[in-house]
Amino acid sequence: MIRINENYTKLKASYLFSDIARRVNTFAAAHPGQPVIRLGIGDVTEPLPPVCVEALHAASDEMGQRATFKGYGPEQGYAFLREAIAQHDFAARGCAIDPDEIFVSDGAKCDCGNIQEIFAHDLRLAIPDPVYPVYVDTNVMAGRTGPNVDGRYEGITYLDCTPANGYIPAIPTAASDLIYLCFPNNPTGAVATKAQLAAWVDYARRHRAIILFDAAYESFIRDPRIPHSIYEIDGAREVAIEFRSFSKTAGFTGTRCAFTVIPKSLKAWDAAGHEHSLHAMWNRRHTTKFNGVAYPIQRAAAAIYTDAGRQQTRALTSFYLENAALIRKAMLQLGFTCSGGDNAPYIWVNVGRDSWEFFDLLLNRAQVVCTPGAGFGKCGEGHVRISAFNSRDNVVAALERIAQALK
Amino acid sequence: MIRINENYTKLKASYLFSDIARRVNTFAAAHPGQPVIRLGIGDVTEPLPPVCVEALHAASDEMGQRATFKGYGPEQGYAFLREAIAQHDFAARGCAIDPDEIFVSDGAKCDCGNIQEIFAHDLRLAIPDPVYPVYVDTNVMAGRTGPNVDGRYEGITYLDCTPANGYIPAIPTAASDLIYLCFPNNPTGAVATKAQLAAWVDYARRHRAIILFDAAYESFIRDPRIPHSIYEIDGAREVAIEFRSFSKTAGFTGTRCAFTVIPKSLKAWDAAGHEHSLHAMWNRRHTTKFNGVAYPIQRAAAAIYTDAGRQQTRALTSFYLENAALIRKAMLQLGFTCSGGDNAPYIWVNVGRDSWEFFDLLLNRAQVVCTPGAGFGKCGEGHVRISAFNSRDNVVAALERIAQALK
Repeated sequence: MIRINENYTKLKASYLFSDIARRVNTFAAAHPGQPVIRLGIGDVTEPLPPVCVEALHAASDEMGQRATFKGYGPEQGYAFLREAIAQHDFAARGCAIDPDEIFVSDGAKCDCGNIQEIFAHDLRLAIPDPVYPVYVDTNVMAGRTGPNVDGRYEGITYLDCTPANGYIPAIPTAASDLIYLCFPNNPTGAVATKAQLAAWVDYARRHRAIILFDAAYESFIRDPRIPHSIYEIDGAREVAIEFRSFSKTAGFTGTRCAFTVIPKSLKAWDAAGHEHSLHAMWNRRHTTKFNGVAYPIQRAAAAIYTDAGRQQTRALTSFYLENAALIRKAMLQLGFTCSGGDNAPYIWVNVGRDSWEFFDLLLNRAQVVCTPGAGFGKCGEGHVRISAFNSRDNVVAALERIAQALK
Repeated sequence: MIRINENYTKLKASYLFSDIARRVNTFAAAHPGQPVIRLGIGDVTEPLPPVCVEALHAASDEMGQRATFKGYGPEQGYAFLREAIAQHDFAARGCAIDPDEIFVSDGAKCDCGNIQEIFAHDLRLAIPDPVYPVYVDTNVMAGRTGPNVDGRYEGITYLDCTPANGYIPAIPTAASDLIYLCFPNNPTGAVATKAQLAAWVDYARRHRAIILFDAAYESFIRDPRIPHSIYEIDGAREVAIEFRSFSKTAGFTGTRCAFTVIPKSLKAWDAAGHEHSLHAMWNRRHTTKFNGVAYPIQRAAAAIYTDAGRQQTRALTSFYLENAALIRKAMLQLGFTCSGGDNAPYIWVNVGRDSWEFFDLLLNRAQVVCTPGAGFGKCGEGHVRISAFNSRDNVVAALERIAQALK
């Protein structure tokens, strides 16, 4: 008799963003005359940069001609893309990352979700709260946790991010083996200084732990003192895996391209104490379960690194950051305290009440969708995340409606 | 201290196709004047159908305009594609498959590799030999097997496919829980009749087992008596998951689109005997770890189902089948017995000697790459797989060279 992976039964009933979509669809169906403005899921709204569209066209033509047609590419990504990434995202910032330490994929969600497969089953996990649900849920599915008790899974060390610590978690006193960090943070928008990241790297080195560093939002950093990559920290090549995405950098949420950096210097151990290369393990996983990103999409991603591409994507992230500044200002004027919105496209608003209640209030009275903080974890309660991903008109209209609704 | 998933250490040293690529690259580097013809990995060579290129262009333009730009789509795929699949691949063949039973993905390799995650850890696996290595390796990685002893992993019931049974495995006498089947078969090219599939469906129903049916090559079937989908068999909706791919149907190996069918009627059980919906479980897995296929790629896939698209893809698979017929004929003339090549793009040649030795012989004497049967399992020994995916000129030249080399 076929039996299920019972770890799935530990998961909370549904995925946060599916929950939100259902409530929004229900509202929209009941109120067809009241257009909803979505500042919730964090999906981009502005078109692909022209360089990317041009690259898609050129690559589509290549695919239509026998002489230039591309079949299976390298599972890890084409050299033209990996080399551009290594040069512009890492060498330019003083980080020594080789092109073949970069694994191109179809999404940071997939990579963040799949990476845990190469590690042992009985690890000590340290995961921030609030947090992008994928880090937690994929470990629950893999059986690394106990049941969910009062909103938290047994077997995870939660790293509380609260107003009191400025949403930057303290280094744990106990040892951990696998640590998830995300800066600029989703959902809080908080950024980590070099000193703060250096403390994490030092902690990981002391405990021979691995840091999974999600830098999907690094292109929104404007403060020159804030590191874009964890590899800007000495010693990080021995303890850190970094996840990057073109989703928010270049509006690729519907185009799907991302990458993960696994330095060849990263080690992990078996029970007998023998060293293993995590690069080799991930390479095995990646080549066995994945067949590479579509060639036209990789060409579109590579176009981002041309001079024109860098100008266009900079303009894109700056546009969203201007939205973010408006949202932040409006929320402060309404008397809320906020995090993020300056080096991140998210504004984390301390609403001082039940977050789903506040979500419903904004939806029903202002027809604005935000993301309830409770969906990101226990410490998210009392907060909502407002996303800067929308047109200027919609952001301005949403802020007026919110101000009206909260009068 | 961070520890590894030690199941990875049970895997044989490298992935079959990486092994082949290394040998071919070594040969090519040493013999720059001797162009190699690749009839190995099974990668298509002919360009994308014009309808797909047109669809890519149109969708690229949509992505460049705010009004038509697409961000995150449904993780399961757009309705326009799922509906076209349901209509043309299933309803047209009398199979009752709803669009929302179809999960669009970026590759059948990913889906075949990931599907095992939703099942229990201690299942009784039945896997054909020879076989596409992904079925086995992903279960090894997940810890469902013991070590590899003499070329076989402990804990798997291997379904022998041999010259004696015409490469169609016999139904096991013992019970199994999860059964992998692939027809038209990779690597043997064998096809299963309705009666043969009905026997498997009956077996699965008796044992409350699940069949994972890989139909990635169904578009090469020309014999009208051979089923294209397992859902053409009564009762299959209660026991079978089907994998499909556009890779070979429409030359999408570098474009990346596939789909998996999980009927809502499929059940599995927990240890306490409670029923669970596999559709709901896979939906949870898919939405948590995957973010959908790029919009332009889904548009290109949907174009295949237009009248022009169906003509163009039919012409494409017919072209490869003509290659296959030439290869089959040439191998028979050389005195080998063969399977496949009529309703499949692969010819499985019984070479009657060590398969890597024959691989090296063809590479060194004929500069032709095939795939050694031993790479697909113990029963693959003594065989090689020759792929029909190449230009007519290359196929003809390869066959002349092979005839010369084997004189």
